[in-house]
Amino acid sequence: MNYSYVSHLYCPKCSQTYDSDQVHNLCQCGSPLLVSYDLHTLKKDWKRDDVSTREASLWRYHELLPVKDRSSVITLGEGMTPLLTMHKSGIDMGIPQLMMKDEGIVPTGSFKARGAAVGVSKAKELGITELGMPTNGNAGAAWSLYAARAGISSTIVMPVDAPKITRNECAISGAHLFLVNGLISDAGKMVGQAVQERGMYDVSTLKEPYRIEGKKTMGLELAEQLQWQVPDVILYPTGGGVGLIGIYKALRELQELGWIDSEKMPRLVAVQSEGCAPIYEAWKNGQTSSVFWPNSETIAFGINVPKALGDFLVLDALYETDGCSVTVSDDTLLEEQQRIAEMEGAFVCPEGAAAFAAARQLRKQDWIQEDDQVVVLNTGAGIKYPDTVDVHVPTLEPGETLPTV
Amino acid sequence: MNYSYVSHLYCPKCSQTYDSDQVHNLCQCGSPLLVSYDLHTLKKDWKRDDVSTREASLWRYHELLPVKDRSSVITLGEGMTPLLTMHKSGIDMGIPQLMMKDEGIVPTGSFKARGAAVGVSKAKELGITELGMPTNGNAGAAWSLYAARAGISSTIVMPVDAPKITRNECAISGAHLFLVNGLISDAGKMVGQAVQERGMYDVSTLKEPYRIEGKKTMGLELAEQLQWQVPDVILYPTGGGVGLIGIYKALRELQELGWIDSEKMPRLVAVQSEGCAPIYEAWKNGQTSSVFWPNSETIAFGINVPKALGDFLVLDALYETDGCSVTVSDDTLLEEQQRIAEMEGAFVCPEGAAAFAAARQLRKQDWIQEDDQVVVLNTGAGIKYPDTVDVHVPTLEPGETLPTV
Repeated sequence: MNYSYVSHLYCPKCSQTYDSDQVHNLCQCGSPLLVSYDLHTLKKDWKRDDVSTREASLWRYHELLPVKDRSSVITLGEGMTPLLTMHKSGIDMGIPQLMMKDEGIVPTGSFKARGAAVGVSKAKELGITELGMPTNGNAGAAWSLYAARAGISSTIVMPVDAPKITRNECAISGAHLFLVNGLISDAGKMVGQAVQERGMYDVSTLKEPYRIEGKKTMGLELAEQLQWQVPDVILYPTGGGVGLIGIYKALRELQELGWIDSEKMPRLVAVQSEGCAPIYEAWKNGQTSSVFWPNSETIAFGINVPKALGDFLVLDALYETDGCSVTVSDDTLLEEQQRIAEMEGAFVCPEGAAAFAAARQLRKQDWIQEDDQVVVLNTGAGIKYPDTVDVHVPTLEPGETLPTV
Repeated sequence: MNYSYVSHLYCPKCSQTYDSDQVHNLCQCGSPLLVSYDLHTLKKDWKRDDVSTREASLWRYHELLPVKDRSSVITLGEGMTPLLTMHKSGIDMGIPQLMMKDEGIVPTGSFKARGAAVGVSKAKELGITELGMPTNGNAGAAWSLYAARAGISSTIVMPVDAPKITRNECAISGAHLFLVNGLISDAGKMVGQAVQERGMYDVSTLKEPYRIEGKKTMGLELAEQLQWQVPDVILYPTGGGVGLIGIYKALRELQELGWIDSEKMPRLVAVQSEGCAPIYEAWKNGQTSSVFWPNSETIAFGINVPKALGDFLVLDALYETDGCSVTVSDDTLLEEQQRIAEMEGAFVCPEGAAAFAAARQLRKQDWIQEDDQVVVLNTGAGIKYPDTVDVHVPTLEPGETLPTV
């Protein structure tokens, strides 16, 4: 019984393999690397009932994670987020079996915590002492806080427009934080230069193989929370798409372990913004990779990614599961955000709201059927985005009578 | 096997009892009411191992909660927050066994979610359709969101100085929100008038009996997470003190059930701000109730409560457990907040930071011993308080080289 059943790294493009005990970033061919496990042995050693009494964090699946030594684990208690029924909004949309997996209920308030927890833990295990990354905000916040816990120094570059609270998170953790008067792609170039010249570990999206393993746990948890069934549809707000790739990978691994039905996969939906829709465009045209989206803009900052390194993996997952991609306007997602709060008491992030709006749209188009079981991933807490809510509140003087409404 | 073993309400001051199937607020004598359970029967029906495989939310303890019908439960997945080791800061303070129970990892980002979940569920079960409350921000946010989920209308009044993000939470839930150019006590008077004139349900702190039952679950979880042991010391940032009263009540109930040792109680510490320290003053003078603290002021807004309705219960818990009260300055708590982020990767709220600073102080005074197991309650996520962190970050132009540090 090993703590991890990780076996090696492999390239999903050219099939080259690499040693997972050494530091690797991209494949020689330029593709992201993925992590492989000895599922054959694991299938004999591990039963799904074994996890039911474990602690409520993503580390309950440590056999399927890349960290080999328990003592390398850097945790703030992330994972096993709630899977909630969305009864009123589901009825409203004509999807009675609508559910939300709420990734706002994690350290740092966004699903980026999963990737950071596993990525930083593995970086520590590999002896990394300094990491660097560009970010739209939430990933930088998560990685700098987990890096602080691990004693790893971090250098973070984010656009000046990124959510302000994520600056605070980076700054208070002691990260070396810089703003750039530009986009995440500008930040990426500056980090790339620093990586080359100074030898820090590049933890940009998919440039190291372990973030995706953290995100993968959303899929593992979802299957467990549905008693080892999968839903009919999963909607995921897609920027870099790591979570979608991760969920797909998780479900394939569970199929190989025999923990879920090998015949049924959920139809995966990549939800994008009208102002930044490279995956949508590629999917619509049946292409296997996307084209850089110029002048991208959306209030859902987390999905403002003009060209994702893992686009081909996202598209592959859509095609393999009979999924699709849809776009949502900023106005539509803001309306949906308010509706979800009023009906369900859940203050979701703009990206999550986009995914709910997409569910409504796909139901109208009958792509989602009334009896489908549908799960929306809300990737963060609404409280991280105070500027997306317009508040007009009357101010009274002490002793005044409350106006009737 | 009942879903709940609630038996009745009772007054901790005059011992009067009340029917828990009817709507009650305060006792005739003016005291808050507490909830009693049929622990004698429950002890026979329920074993502590029964909870280990239940869902990771506070509802895993439904037998010890007041909601009688499972269908009344209004949940956003709150509870079973992480209990984290705080190794580096513990060593730094001379308390190697320092831990944090992180109440930032809940819906709405603060521990107020626990009280709201149980309070709103019971209100729904009792047929309430409209509730009202004054708030310093976080409680109003939590209650209005849970009320929205329950289909209950809410009226919330908060000081203009309350954290801005909590306004957004109330507003987006559809609550009737008003600001008052004054303190929570001013808000309280205005709500009190509306309650009398319009008959809405008053859910001010301790004016209904069920919020404390939600908060109580922090104590239940803590005991379970420590394998049904209790720590030596628990530090709790104390405003209204409901959480401290709740934890004390939880541990007494677990003792009666025989789930924890009946001889050992943790020493409870009520942490206050130097700018608002009524409980501290009362404790220092051996009194059983507190005096209104005029012109109170602290950056830790959640513990800015000049006179708590449950002060006598807080003080009783301190005396009964050989606990104490301490005060912390705003400067000290801000320093501690940064230290905890840099050392542990945890961005705690100002109130939680105050409790860590208090632990450091009590260790220096040798009130906490080196071998004590010490738990700090962090009552909310730091991301809800963007203004407490001063950030000075250089802004670069695209293409610039990152400065070396």
